[in-house]
Amino acid sequence: MHQMSDIYNFNAGPAVLPKEVLRQAQEELLDYEGSGMSIMEASHRGAEYAAVHDEAQSNFRKLLSVSDDYAVLLLQGGASHQFAMIPMNFLGEGQTADYALSGSWAKKAAAEAKSVGQVHIAADTDKDRPTRVPSLDALDLTDGAAYLHLTSNETISGAQWKAYPECDSPLVADMSSDVLSRTLDISKFGIIYAGAQKNMGPAGVTTIVIRKDLVERGAKELPSVLRYQTHVDSDSLSNTPPCFSIYVVCLVTRWVLAKGGVSAIEKWNEEKAAALYSAIDSTEFYSGAADPAHRSLMNVTFNLPTPELEAQFAKEAGDAGLKGLKGHRSVGGLRASIYNAFPREGIDALLAFMADFEKRNG
Amino acid sequence: MHQMSDIYNFNAGPAVLPKEVLRQAQEELLDYEGSGMSIMEASHRGAEYAAVHDEAQSNFRKLLSVSDDYAVLLLQGGASHQFAMIPMNFLGEGQTADYALSGSWAKKAAAEAKSVGQVHIAADTDKDRPTRVPSLDALDLTDGAAYLHLTSNETISGAQWKAYPECDSPLVADMSSDVLSRTLDISKFGIIYAGAQKNMGPAGVTTIVIRKDLVERGAKELPSVLRYQTHVDSDSLSNTPPCFSIYVVCLVTRWVLAKGGVSAIEKWNEEKAAALYSAIDSTEFYSGAADPAHRSLMNVTFNLPTPELEAQFAKEAGDAGLKGLKGHRSVGGLRASIYNAFPREGIDALLAFMADFEKRNG
Repeated sequence: MHQMSDIYNFNAGPAVLPKEVLRQAQEELLDYEGSGMSIMEASHRGAEYAAVHDEAQSNFRKLLSVSDDYAVLLLQGGASHQFAMIPMNFLGEGQTADYALSGSWAKKAAAEAKSVGQVHIAADTDKDRPTRVPSLDALDLTDGAAYLHLTSNETISGAQWKAYPECDSPLVADMSSDVLSRTLDISKFGIIYAGAQKNMGPAGVTTIVIRKDLVERGAKELPSVLRYQTHVDSDSLSNTPPCFSIYVVCLVTRWVLAKGGVSAIEKWNEEKAAALYSAIDSTEFYSGAADPAHRSLMNVTFNLPTPELEAQFAKEAGDAGLKGLKGHRSVGGLRASIYNAFPREGIDALLAFMADFEKRNG
Repeated sequence: MHQMSDIYNFNAGPAVLPKEVLRQAQEELLDYEGSGMSIMEASHRGAEYAAVHDEAQSNFRKLLSVSDDYAVLLLQGGASHQFAMIPMNFLGEGQTADYALSGSWAKKAAAEAKSVGQVHIAADTDKDRPTRVPSLDALDLTDGAAYLHLTSNETISGAQWKAYPECDSPLVADMSSDVLSRTLDISKFGIIYAGAQKNMGPAGVTTIVIRKDLVERGAKELPSVLRYQTHVDSDSLSNTPPCFSIYVVCLVTRWVLAKGGVSAIEKWNEEKAAALYSAIDSTEFYSGAADPAHRSLMNVTFNLPTPELEAQFAKEAGDAGLKGLKGHRSVGGLRASIYNAFPREGIDALLAFMADFEKRNG
């Protein structure tokens, strides 16, 4: 085996996973619970996988206190696939769906919906600098809208909704980059969905929490694989699920429970982010990219005085084992993605590097 | 670590993977090539994953001699998702798609297409016993059909197309359970697609080989995630791919290359299947479920004199370490799925068990 390299992984997604989870997956990779086979080789209809499938869902329900009024689904295709499935199921002819735009991801979701039906932009802060999400009282909502869609956390710009709008139409939220990182009142939502590859596990599975009465109202004339009803009726087993990804999600949810659940993780996330934002605010050399009231606890975006210094920072940080700090190519700057599994020691290492870099280049 | 249990895995899918592949995945699960992170934690835009993504595709191209006239895609959603995407892209208004029905999977594909457009059943052997696929000269084809769809190997019944129809419209084949198990002339096909979880890797990724001129003719008014063009244009990276599943596919394709490629594997598969069918044919106690001319090399389906004996056989075989031999619930009987990675020693173990079982119960 390679000598384990000692790094901190600030990738925006796929992202760091808990070491304990990886070690367990490694240990049982060839022989899952004495079955003589890998969980990758187990039938999706067999007892071994069935227990994993059920536990992943029930842990998720426990972690977010999801009531029986909602179904929890584990589907393939990523959040991007949900961008299409949601309007295909719920944006019928003659209806309008409201979209609150806050950055790249919300815009992509709206663009997919426009290929399906009538979309109304309820707000648009995409171009605001510092980056921010729309204000709750500035939303221009459609009477009788099919739903209101928002992106809970903009992974690229680093802006996050701190509170969610109250509205008459079902609230639909893409929580790909902040699911399980913060406590939620699920009853305020019609649908939440999240690709796993930031806070839940490896890429390849998307968790959807959907109110059952909505499912029943979904379009019936679609191919069955694109209908939520199909997956609710079959407990996400209408076709072969991405078993290994779900297995890792199961281990991650178990890890969050062992850490004290979402409220404990949220407190930990607040502390990690506060340490980083406080360092950014304590000097003129670094500046936060997001409006302080909208700063993401998951993706801390910041700038240096020049793009050249930013490139040098990302390069030298990488060489020092702080990986993945370069900002998204569409916005530049720097980004520290510090999801649930990102360790506090990694924040401290970054703080030390930032202080040293400023001393040398400030 | 658990004591490794010594079993043979006859599961129909997810199914047995090469031990060498699992060992390598295990060894580098926490530290991929000295990067200090798991391949599950690596960015899908980074150098480590990019090499995996490219190699999986180029190995696949090499193994099936796929020319530059075709794109190779790695998508989520399973073959079931392709059941919908194919007609959504290629079955326009006023057009008809031909479907050759040979069993459960072909029927499911046709049912999804019917929710999209006009479907003509070109043949139907679903109810034929012994089970078989349609004869090439019995296909009732539509002039100017959008395409002709068939299921290369019916995993449930164990019937397989030994040769493929020549037709004017593009030939579309679901090869989920026999891809990479047999040599193919790709130029005869418009599209082949295959879920990975039988011959290629874990569940969660589907390989699609699609003629580029077809891609360009695909419907333009669909959500982008449902258009082949989107995935061809982005090299299957328009959104986060199922990185870990693709990584395992990469290792499996490398393993097939090391074994001598598809023609070597095909010969090996023929020998494994012949040994088993020969044992079935050598006694009245066992009987093959498929017409001898259509017998699958991947899923060997057979019967015993009574359902009670079949249940007893599956139970006792399982206790003896021969796992997953129970036939699909929809057809009963027994099924030995012996994909590429299924070892010859497992066939010999089954033959010995069959002889002993017959001696005790015949």
